[in-house]
Amino acid sequence: MPDVAFTALDHAIMARALRLAERGAYTTRPNPMVGCVLVRDGEVVGEGFHERAGGPHAEVVALQAAGERARGATAYVTLEPCSHTGRTAPCADALIDAGVTRVVGAMRDPFPQVDGAGFEKLRAAGIDVESGLMESQARELNRGFLSRVERGRPWLRVKIAMSIDGRTALASGDSRWISSEASRMDVQRWRAHASALMTGAGTVLADDPQLTVRLGDDTPFVPPLRVVLDPGLATIRRGRIREGDAPTLYIHAPDVRVPRECDAQMAAAPVEGGRFDLDAVMRLLGERKINEVQLEAGATLAGAFLASGLVDELLLYVAPLLLGATARPLFDGLDIQQMAERRALRIVDTRQTGDDLRLLLRPAP
Amino acid sequence: MPDVAFTALDHAIMARALRLAERGAYTTRPNPMVGCVLVRDGEVVGEGFHERAGGPHAEVVALQAAGERARGATAYVTLEPCSHTGRTAPCADALIDAGVTRVVGAMRDPFPQVDGAGFEKLRAAGIDVESGLMESQARELNRGFLSRVERGRPWLRVKIAMSIDGRTALASGDSRWISSEASRMDVQRWRAHASALMTGAGTVLADDPQLTVRLGDDTPFVPPLRVVLDPGLATIRRGRIREGDAPTLYIHAPDVRVPRECDAQMAAAPVEGGRFDLDAVMRLLGERKINEVQLEAGATLAGAFLASGLVDELLLYVAPLLLGATARPLFDGLDIQQMAERRALRIVDTRQTGDDLRLLLRPAP
Repeated sequence: MPDVAFTALDHAIMARALRLAERGAYTTRPNPMVGCVLVRDGEVVGEGFHERAGGPHAEVVALQAAGERARGATAYVTLEPCSHTGRTAPCADALIDAGVTRVVGAMRDPFPQVDGAGFEKLRAAGIDVESGLMESQARELNRGFLSRVERGRPWLRVKIAMSIDGRTALASGDSRWISSEASRMDVQRWRAHASALMTGAGTVLADDPQLTVRLGDDTPFVPPLRVVLDPGLATIRRGRIREGDAPTLYIHAPDVRVPRECDAQMAAAPVEGGRFDLDAVMRLLGERKINEVQLEAGATLAGAFLASGLVDELLLYVAPLLLGATARPLFDGLDIQQMAERRALRIVDTRQTGDDLRLLLRPAP
Repeated sequence: MPDVAFTALDHAIMARALRLAERGAYTTRPNPMVGCVLVRDGEVVGEGFHERAGGPHAEVVALQAAGERARGATAYVTLEPCSHTGRTAPCADALIDAGVTRVVGAMRDPFPQVDGAGFEKLRAAGIDVESGLMESQARELNRGFLSRVERGRPWLRVKIAMSIDGRTALASGDSRWISSEASRMDVQRWRAHASALMTGAGTVLADDPQLTVRLGDDTPFVPPLRVVLDPGLATIRRGRIREGDAPTLYIHAPDVRVPRECDAQMAAAPVEGGRFDLDAVMRLLGERKINEVQLEAGATLAGAFLASGLVDELLLYVAPLLLGATARPLFDGLDIQQMAERRALRIVDTRQTGDDLRLLLRPAP
């Protein structure tokens, strides 16, 4: 229970720092979201968040806002301050130089070049350091970054629009439009949150998605990488997935000839029995600094990811309609013969989007 | 907009009368639920609800509680007072005799022997009568009774426990237990609310349900009639459906020989191509004064009722688990080839029962 020693004010300030951090949700990647609030004599004297990789870190923004008032202040940070010189100078040094006397962190940064060294540096400078305040919220915020650093693969979200009877399309493949306009707008925000939007060659051929982010306003975002799993590179010359302002990566079988003139990114992943090794696909994306992947694909690919145990969350838009037993299921290849084999999930969030129910589910622990 | 002329106090008192009426939900059938509140000089002087068919009506209970204080009072009634002598004397006469000077009703009673005559009798006696206050809530309360009287058939609720991927059982038929214990307890309350619990011969053979009400406490209820749709009477000698303290009705094909020694109720309904005429089944139940039916059956029978357009609401317990594409669907026989044919529903209620989501849906208007 690391929270026991913290006061209600500590919690309130850290909650604010977490909300600040989240303002970088569409732009910080591949960096984590970080928020920082400086408090002196019970008064907020500076705050900031990390907006873009290469830009100033949250601590530096907050220190600049505070100026001389940072001296003797407590810094609340949602992630351990960095101790190494990356694209910017170490934040630990900046906090020491500014005369901050106490640092409260939500969590240690597992990034190999930090991993406790930031807190250590602060302590060595005589600063009072405490960590673990609202750690679970901080982990939830950066689940993508943490997945990449700790597991070597991105966090995987599978987005599905479905009918109440568990169908994603008619037998003909027609799926326009199962979900409400409010749901489709909501999907855009989840897309902006992801580092990559992934689909399969089958979906490119059948639905021709653009897989770009269309927020409908001028909120800044870094366009997510579009990823097409296409063993034979059957789709590289076609479709709206090559249009719009976002890069596209084709993942193909190792033995496929890659055309030289193609301007898309290419990467080979091992294939067995005509199917990608999905663990390898995810590791490959992790190596490319992809924190969070949103899969928007058909039942075959979604089912394969689910069967592989790589799915971290399901984002379901459940429309109040029936499509009948001949329509297409959520997941193919999930052949459950015994109740003991059922896949248990837990409902993380439920809300209404237009006339639909939106459910966020994760594998039960 | 009949509500415009009513005051906030009128609404508050009628809301109380509706809540009182609902206390008869498990016991009044085949009669409607009715509540009555008597108010004089802004003070409640008596209230009551109709508890059991054959017992005193809500108005009489309230008048007895009020005694002499009913003189000059306003009576709030959730349904038009009766004007005919049934098993009890007319409530309109009782209100007149007690000296009530104003009657506010939620709705007219469409029952042929009332149907406006109650209000008329009150008006003829010089009582100020207004109706239509919270009528939609009053109609919702008695949707079963109103369905029987106005449409000649019971209200039909289909109860289904399902996985999040729209499956009700494994391919083997195993469905124990998809839903949580909290959901299964909740089902008992909906059963107690129904006049009849209906299933098919297939479910009797496969699952052997008892189809009785087990509330787990001593709340009084009238045991719902158990109804088995069994064209060939293949199941009459078997199963837990013959156990417990509730009557059982077998609906069979007209040409089947009914064994004389059987103590269950029997009724013939027309069959075409091996399938019951479900309209006729529902009319038959309406003639037997069944207000509300809860169907707990497999995908074949549920699908047939759905295809027939007879389903008034779906009560879905959605468990957060996946059973896969080989598991059984919600409804068979709903063969939708075009998006335009999809069955649109609306979500009437969403809540959590244990780890499950409970959804109440009705056909979209």
